[in-house]
This record gives sequence, structure tokens and C-alpha cells, in this order.
Amino acid sequence: MKYFNVAVVGATGAVGQELLNLLEERNFPINELRLCATSRSAGRKVEFKGSTYRVEETTFDSFKGMDIALFAGGSASKEFGPAAVECGAVVIDNSSNFRLDNEVPLVVPEVNPEDVIWHRGVIANPNCSTIIMTLPLKAVHDVCKIKRVVVSTYQAVSGAGAEGINELSEQTKAVMSGGEYSPQKFQHQIAFNLIPHIDVLQEMDYTKEEWKMVKETHKIIHDDFGITATTVRVPVYRSHAESINIETYEKITASKAKEVFDAFPNLIVDDNLADNRYPMPLYTSNRDEVFVGRIREDNTIDKGLNIWISADQIRKGAATNAIQIAELVIKYGCLLQKK
Amino acid sequence: MKYFNVAVVGATGAVGQELLNLLEERNFPINELRLCATSRSAGRKVEFKGSTYRVEETTFDSFKGMDIALFAGGSASKEFGPAAVECGAVVIDNSSNFRLDNEVPLVVPEVNPEDVIWHRGVIANPNCSTIIMTLPLKAVHDVCKIKRVVVSTYQAVSGAGAEGINELSEQTKAVMSGGEYSPQKFQHQIAFNLIPHIDVLQEMDYTKEEWKMVKETHKIIHDDFGITATTVRVPVYRSHAESINIETYEKITASKAKEVFDAFPNLIVDDNLADNRYPMPLYTSNRDEVFVGRIREDNTIDKGLNIWISADQIRKGAATNAIQIAELVIKYGCLLQKK
Repeated sequence: MKYFNVAVVGATGAVGQELLNLLEERNFPINELRLCATSRSAGRKVEFKGSTYRVEETTFDSFKGMDIALFAGGSASKEFGPAAVECGAVVIDNSSNFRLDNEVPLVVPEVNPEDVIWHRGVIANPNCSTIIMTLPLKAVHDVCKIKRVVVSTYQAVSGAGAEGINELSEQTKAVMSGGEYSPQKFQHQIAFNLIPHIDVLQEMDYTKEEWKMVKETHKIIHDDFGITATTVRVPVYRSHAESINIETYEKITASKAKEVFDAFPNLIVDDNLADNRYPMPLYTSNRDEVFVGRIREDNTIDKGLNIWISADQIRKGAATNAIQIAELVIKYGCLLQKK
Repeated sequence: MKYFNVAVVGATGAVGQELLNLLEERNFPINELRLCATSRSAGRKVEFKGSTYRVEETTFDSFKGMDIALFAGGSASKEFGPAAVECGAVVIDNSSNFRLDNEVPLVVPEVNPEDVIWHRGVIANPNCSTIIMTLPLKAVHDVCKIKRVVVSTYQAVSGAGAEGINELSEQTKAVMSGGEYSPQKFQHQIAFNLIPHIDVLQEMDYTKEEWKMVKETHKIIHDDFGITATTVRVPVYRSHAESINIETYEKITASKAKEVFDAFPNLIVDDNLADNRYPMPLYTSNRDEVFVGRIREDNTIDKGLNIWISADQIRKGAATNAIQIAELVIKYGCLLQKK
């Protein structure tokens, strides 16, 4: 068994903390662990496998001797990613900085694991809503080729990090006691409300989040079928959900769809309305799988299917997927030469 | 000016209370007002225009001398509707009991007001999610004929009445203080959760709520274009929202769509993402109009359009629409002969 030196950048945020949980939980073969963050969080103490680690400020020297550098998000990978690669660390980046770069693989391990192999130092972790949608889409695409997807999302506040979670909690308390809590992380009050606006405005009046779901899915599935998305923030803590309408070239029945979902790795069919069974954010939280239910044929077109999915945004939508990529890097032996 | 005798059945529930608010607010020409409810609520006192009314138990005699009987929902119209008509009262029924009956008009006043005229005593008020969707659909259908609609809903707890509202509130309090509050009105915890299950299971694994959106829309718009729906309960108090993808036979541009929405009665365009403007449940509550935003062309098909709507479920989704129907009955002079 080989052991590796791992740096976690952004170790104190929601995704960073979950990366550490998962490294421990999955018994990742770690030799040396280095925890980095911005100067604001440097000096904080973090527990890992019973030991206490001091978080250091990320610098160009942070990656010396590291095999793998996990970047939790934000602009850090833009600033320090190239330096990490230069040091010989494979960068697995949860931010959107490199996702659409032709030189960077964008990977969901259940969907396109082989793309890990051609990395040149950086591997990008996709957008959370995109990751969880690609599992059922790939399952269907493999048997009945997808023509078009219409997706509406129901996205948890954890997508905006620990501050997003805190805002929902504090704002709910304030509203319940007749007070107020001004929106800081979100554009408007999210407690008992819905905000159909995630990330910035881009072309054709779609948001960047909506375009991510289109462009990243194309890159991951290696096909450019039609995808149109409406992304909406909902007052839920940490699991996203999506209502997905799929048009295929070959007819897929509901029972065939259940069969292919069932056979797909890390995709769990939870679909029995008569027994009140279907995926819900409250019960898919702290899980690593994507859950699919409400599987129904859509007879408004010849070859239509409706599904409803839910998965933990911080886990499969971010940290779990990143750790799975790191595991693939080790499995395929495609680490860099340390300098 | 003529004045009318009006009975409100189910006067103490969420919709019943809103019916009274609206009768007062819109200065409905009332001569005698009679408030009815089940034996459980009989005897309660209710304020209306500065006077106190005693709620009586609904009986077959409750409708003697009444011109209009507003039924707030539930099974009451099945039991007492025929008796009310027999007495000469026009029944405006918010329940689903008669909506798909060929002898009963199903009316959204902005969409098919003329259907009021052929009533035979009972006029049905449509399902809340259906009502609010028909305004923008009719606006588009009139200029570019709709081929197919894919809709995903985000439905407030008020759809389950005053008890639904109370459950969200009490359950949120319990969860925030680390406690529990067992689901009663809903199948599962709704606080900080999503439940993709509204009303009972019907054919093809769709719910009754989902079929209502299909069948009622066809009846109201007098056309049977494809509609496929996924209906979801969200932790929001009293305004529904819907993400709607529309395919038309003739291309409608986003700017043309804004124009026709703008010209449509009681439909308000709120669409400027750069200024963080779009319809949200928190701000469409206690309003009578339907709000539409996030208007975008969908280029995954030749003639596609995405919109996002929100409207108050208790108002336009129920009570306002019922009162508007009563106003039409008076305007068209199609009351019954009192017996």
C-alpha cells in the first residue's frame, strides 16, 4: 500500500470540512496532510483522525512535497493551482476556474472516469447541480441516446457555503420571532422564499449556473444534446433536488429506466409513491449517492421520461466527487513527478 | 346598484377567511351574508365590515334565499351543492368535485370568462397551480399556439389549508430548537425539505395534482396541447411558483412574450435579472395578480420559451379567482331564479 501527501486548500469552509470528513471516512492513504486557507482562517485548529492540525495560510510553498492538492473552491486555484502543479501535485479543483478549459478534464467518476488519465496537472470537479444530474443522464444516454433535457432545480443553501447555511438558519430564527435578518449571501431573503437566481447573469438572460449545467454536462458526457435549465435556490440546508424531463431518440419505458438506474453505480432508485417513497433533501443529506424517483413516462412526446433526483450538495455535489477523483488518480497511477 | 345574498361555506378555513377579506376589500354588493362551516367550527364568531357574524353549521336550509354560494373547498359542495342550486343559489366551488364535469364550467376570468354564461347552477374554480399557469399560457397560445408544456411546481403549504401553514410554522420552530414535530398534514417533514408528492397517486405514476394541471388546463383553454407536470411541495407559506417550458408552433421571441404578458390582464412582468428582479413567493403573497419573469428563449428547440411564475395560492389560486367568477355572474346577469 502506498501513502500520499495531501494538501487541502480552503480547509475551513463547508466543502473543505467535508473533504476532511471523507478523507477520514474513506481511509484515504495519507502520509502527510497539510491544511491551507486564506490568512483570515490561518491559525485555526482542525481535528483529523484524532490529531490536531494547524491551518496555515496558502502560499506558493504550501505544495512542496505534496502528491495531491484538493482545492475546495473560490479563486485559490487560480492563484495557487499552477504553483501546485509546478511542485508536482495533481490539483483537483472544485471551483469553476478551469472546468471548461480544453486542457483540463472535468470528471464525474461514475460517468467519465477515463478522462482522469489525460490530465496535465489539473482535474476539475464539476458544478454541484451538474454532477448529480449526469449520473441518471449517462445511464439513460447509454441505452437510448438523449435528444433533449429540460431541467428545473431546487438548490440548497449549502451551495453558497457555510455562510449560506448560516444565513438560512439565522434568518429563519429572525423571521419566526417577528424580526428581520438582511440578506448577505443571497440576493433576497431565502427563509420561506424561493430565489430563481444563482450565480451571475450571462447570455440570453440565463444565469451562469444555468449555463454550467449545459456546458459542463456536454463536456462530461461527451455529447451535446439539448439542455435547457432553470436554477432556483430553495430554503433547504444541504441537498439539491432536480425535476428533469428527458427526450430520447429510442423509447425508454419507466420500467427499463428503473432497471438502468438500478444498475448504475452510486445511483439509488427510491420510487414508490403508493408508499410515500421518493428522494427528498432531508433524507439524502450526508449520503454519497444520487437518489432518483418519480420515474414516469411522458406521453406528450413519443419518447419522453420524467424523473426527480436529490443528492447531498456538499458530498456528491462537491467533496465526495473530488475524493473519488483523487482515488481514480491513484488507481490509474497518473500522479505527477514530484519536484 | 343591486345587492345580493351570499353564503360562504367553509368560512373559517384559510380560503374561507380570504373569501371574506376579498368580499370586503372589493366591496362586493352584499345584501345578506351567511357564514357556514362544519359542526366543528359552528358557533365561531367572524368579523366582516365591522360586524360580528356567527358561523352556522351548513344544512340543506342554509341556502334558502341566497343568490350566490361560495364553497371554499373539501367535500361540502358534494353534499350541499345540489341543495344550494335547488334553492336558486349559483354555486361557485373551489373543490375538485365538479371541475371535470361536462355540465360545469371551469373558469379563470382572465382566460375563459364567457364559460360562466352556460352554467347550470355550479361553476368550478380550478386547482391553484392550474389557475396561475393558465394566464401566461393563454397569453402565449393566443399569438403562437402552444404545442407542449413541461412544468415543475414549487408549491406553498397553504395549498393544504390553515393546518398546512401551521404545520410549517410549528415544525420549523421545533427543528430550530433541536426538537421534532411529526408530520400530520404532509407525508413527511416539510420544514427545510421538499416533498415531490401532492394529492393521491393516479395513472402512470403521476399524482392527481399533476393530472389536474393537465386536464383542467385543457378544459379552461379549450385546447389539448401536451402538458407534463411534476408537482412539489416546498417550505414556503402562501405563494406558489412554477418553472414552465413552452414549445409553440410559431416562434415567440422573449421580447414578444414580454409584450403579450404585459398586455394580458392581471399578469405582471417582473423580469430584470441584472437588477435582481424576478417573481418570488415572499413578494407575490397577498397580491391578486400572477407574476412572470425569467423570460428566456429556449434554443434547444426551434420554438421554445422558458418562464418562471409566482402567485398567491390563497388569493389568485383560490379566493380571488372565485370572487372574480361571482363578479362575472353578476356582470353577465346569469343568476338563478330564487325558489
